[in-house]
Amino acid sequence: MQYSLQELAGYLNATLEGKGADITGLATLEHADEAQLTFFHSTKPRYLQQLKSCRAGAVLVSTEHKDMVHTAKLIVDDPYIAYAQASRLFSGADAESGSVSERAVIASTATLADNISIGPNVVVGENCKIASDVSIGANTVIGDDCVIGKGSVIQANVTLYNDIVLGEGCRIHSGAVLGADGFGFAHNNGQWLKIYQLGGVRIGNRVEIGAGTTVDRGALDHTYIGDGVIIDNQVQIAHNVVVGDNTAIAGCTAVAGSTHIGEACTVAGACGITGHLEIAAGTHITAMSLVSKNIETAGAYSSGTVAEPHSKWKRNVVRFRQLDEMSRKLKKLETEFKQYKAKVDPNDGC
Amino acid sequence: MQYSLQELAGYLNATLEGKGADITGLATLEHADEAQLTFFHSTKPRYLQQLKSCRAGAVLVSTEHKDMVHTAKLIVDDPYIAYAQASRLFSGADAESGSVSERAVIASTATLADNISIGPNVVVGENCKIASDVSIGANTVIGDDCVIGKGSVIQANVTLYNDIVLGEGCRIHSGAVLGADGFGFAHNNGQWLKIYQLGGVRIGNRVEIGAGTTVDRGALDHTYIGDGVIIDNQVQIAHNVVVGDNTAIAGCTAVAGSTHIGEACTVAGACGITGHLEIAAGTHITAMSLVSKNIETAGAYSSGTVAEPHSKWKRNVVRFRQLDEMSRKLKKLETEFKQYKAKVDPNDGC
Amino acid sequence: MQYSLQELAGYLNATLEGKGADITGLATLEHADEAQLTFFHSTKPRYLQQLKSCRAGAVLVSTEHKDMVHTAKLIVDDPYIAYAQASRLFSGADAESGSVSERAVIASTATLADNISIGPNVVVGENCKIASDVSIGANTVIGDDCVIGKGSVIQANVTLYNDIVLGEGCRIHSGAVLGADGFGFAHNNGQWLKIYQLGGVRIGNRVEIGAGTTVDRGALDHTYIGDGVIIDNQVQIAHNVVVGDNTAIAGCTAVAGSTHIGEACTVAGACGITGHLEIAAGTHITAMSLVSKNIETAGAYSSGTVAEPHSKWKRNVVRFRQLDEMSRKLKKLETEFKQYKAKVDPNDGC
Repeated sequence: MQYSLQELAGYLNATLEGKGADITGLATLEHADEAQLTFFHSTKPRYLQQLKSCRAGAVLVSTEHKDMVHTAKLIVDDPYIAYAQASRLFSGADAESGSVSERAVIASTATLADNISIGPNVVVGENCKIASDVSIGANTVIGDDCVIGKGSVIQANVTLYNDIVLGEGCRIHSGAVLGADGFGFAHNNGQWLKIYQLGGVRIGNRVEIGAGTTVDRGALDHTYIGDGVIIDNQVQIAHNVVVGDNTAIAGCTAVAGSTHIGEACTVAGACGITGHLEIAAGTHITAMSLVSKNIETAGAYSSGTVAEPHSKWKRNVVRFRQLDEMSRKLKKLETEFKQYKAKVDPNDGC
Repeated sequence: MQYSLQELAGYLNATLEGKGADITGLATLEHADEAQLTFFHSTKPRYLQQLKSCRAGAVLVSTEHKDMVHTAKLIVDDPYIAYAQASRLFSGADAESGSVSERAVIASTATLADNISIGPNVVVGENCKIASDVSIGANTVIGDDCVIGKGSVIQANVTLYNDIVLGEGCRIHSGAVLGADGFGFAHNNGQWLKIYQLGGVRIGNRVEIGAGTTVDRGALDHTYIGDGVIIDNQVQIAHNVVVGDNTAIAGCTAVAGSTHIGEACTVAGACGITGHLEIAAGTHITAMSLVSKNIETAGAYSSGTVAEPHSKWKRNVVRFRQLDEMSRKLKKLETEFKQYKAKVDPNDGC
Repeated sequence: MQYSLQELAGYLNATLEGKGADITGLATLEHADEAQLTFFHSTKPRYLQQLKSCRAGAVLVSTEHKDMVHTAKLIVDDPYIAYAQASRLFSGADAESGSVSERAVIASTATLADNISIGPNVVVGENCKIASDVSIGANTVIGDDCVIGKGSVIQANVTLYNDIVLGEGCRIHSGAVLGADGFGFAHNNGQWLKIYQLGGVRIGNRVEIGAGTTVDRGALDHTYIGDGVIIDNQVQIAHNVVVGDNTAIAGCTAVAGSTHIGEACTVAGACGITGHLEIAAGTHITAMSLVSKNIETAGAYSSGTVAEPHSKWKRNVVRFRQLDEMSRKLKKLETEFKQYKAKVDPNDGC
């Protein structure tokens, strides 16, 4: 992959100032060399310092900061957005082979559109519908009655159970499992009686699902992931959860059954959200928080405590377990002091 | 799949009142149509409202509530249990092919009983014993010397290392890994010396293990999962853990090495249980709790804090780190006030 | 596998006292039989008791405790280290076949050194370089341009994306995913614009990576795991993280993007470490802690609270949300009391 500065300016809708050789890759401000493009989007001292010694072939920069750049520059509205756009050019994302491996096992009732890439040992079940420009990595298994939308990319070693519908332009990473049984059991005389999970999973367009993430099928209705949702690695989405459009969920977060998360939320990593909740659109939850009640108003929410030296923490954590007692003692002391003052000097209003 | 109301009544040990067409599926009270069965088991206002406009072909209902249902009804002792029983009928769980793929790689020393389904690209190691009615999904790998009990279902893309024994009627979901090495290392001159893990994994009957869950092999003795245990997705069970019969562990919980969890416990999602602990039978641990000491008495246990607006949390979390100091200040003030009162009026007993 | 006591003494650099039959395995002090080796390294009452009735064929023991052992003994400097060394002998780790399955799909441009074991349905991409004595388990997928160092073991159902470099003597467990895309997106008019992840993953020598663990590729630079690092199951290492040599990370911990963890740290299970942090070498973080600020000084750090009976916790957790208010009330009361005393008796210095 190699692009002239003029080609990049065209692709990124940028104004080119200066000249330079063709660009073969992207790199950080600190490490870019003469054949690489970089971007400058923050005037933090660290980045200003890096800009001074920057050897990049060209820099993506805003009009506001363009005079700070002394190499060739591509002037854009938002250098970070332009970097994201350029990253696609150098990713090889558009270089799929369009060939179906002879080692794939594809059911005779499955229908495959044009320009589909399927790797070795892929298994595609009965009645699946695979749209054009889809790519499926080696050793992935797709159950019966699945639909994969145009241009979606499923990496190697992914598992889709039956009755999973994936929209257009999605990307599913290795180890992800879509449509395993929700954790539904009835308690029956001290034993757990399995409730077979009869719903499916419905995933919108432009959804990214990280490595090792699990999205369970619904019990009766489906589990839903909206358009433009991005989900990081090792996230657990339980049965009948609904995730609103353009919401982002970071790594290792767990969402319990039947919870509805609104649109445009951000959930940071390692959070827990219990079941049957409603989370308002525009909610932001910080790292490792436990949400166990509805959130009705958009805004930022947190729980937990933050790391401190262990010896200090040990003393504080003991006090946490005395907190209610401590609160009652304080209230009692306040009352006693007030009463004492009143008794000693009934006219003293202080 | 299609059943008459009479057939369903027979299967579910129910009394049929009313008539209707054959039933082809299960659905919620809210969404069921004329060809679907539903259940009514709670008189919450929301469900009463849904019952009024319910269009289901038939409703599972208890004797107590049967007069509230105006469609055909199947009267049962416990509608939720009956729903669980009915879910199996409509799941296709009993429709396995009983065929072994030509694309499976099965060691010549493995023994396979009757009516076994094995998908493409499955690998079965030396000396494995697969009982009758077992189903193994595509691309699953089973190491040497494993035993799979009668009627167990192993989904696609599962991994069993060697020396894993699985009981009867188990269900293992995709991405699960049984028998990877426990995290055992000896600290040796600043480096980690691997302790090879020589134990296996022993899993009882009727155990369900969720997608992406890992159960490590033991260091010397085995890791044990009891009969009737249900484990959700992305749970980590470390080496030499023992999980008692009929215990339930929800998603993303981590159990560290050599901990024994008693029978009939419930561990909610995203909990951490440290190593070498004893957890009493009948213990219930709420979501995202850290258990770091033995639990000797059955009951409910919790830790952590719950989400609140970030700006409020920020002030509280700072105070948490001053908690021990705060407690000592309170004690000091109590003492001073008492001494002051005694000094000012030694005869005042208040 | 069967070794005489003399052979074991030679391998473990031990002094043999006593005689006995050949040893065929390792077991605990409690369970070892006449054909098994065990070790005694702690004088806790429980182990002293077990030693009394120990039936092992031989016991690994230090000079200090050797007279407490009444069976054959192998006297070593550190019995726990010697046990770790012996565990390798009985693990079968050195018994790989050295054969490449006819069912593996290996790109013609990949180069394979001598004595390599590759299981069925393994896929190896273009330009990969596999060094000697490497073992790759069934159904593992290795992308293009990967390098696997001498003697490394990759278990079944592992996924390596392209451009992953693994050092010598590494061990990667099933379900692990190395090199999936980091969670990089630019926020663009309410939608998430993907930043293609162009860096790779660089893993040092003697690294162990647990089942279901994910190590993301870098955005532009690489993600780095140092020599001798051990990572347990279901750990998430985000893009551009750097993990220093000989650091240990236990199960279910999540490390967010661009964080640098120093050498010789230990991070316990289920921790969260937020992004762009610097964690000093020699830091120890206890279970389920949230680290959200740089740690500049080696030592132990903790956060969170520990499980207590639910009814008690419910009262305390309410108080946590009043903590700032409580602190201010206490301060106010202290001040009022001081002022009161001063007013009542201005000369009273108490």
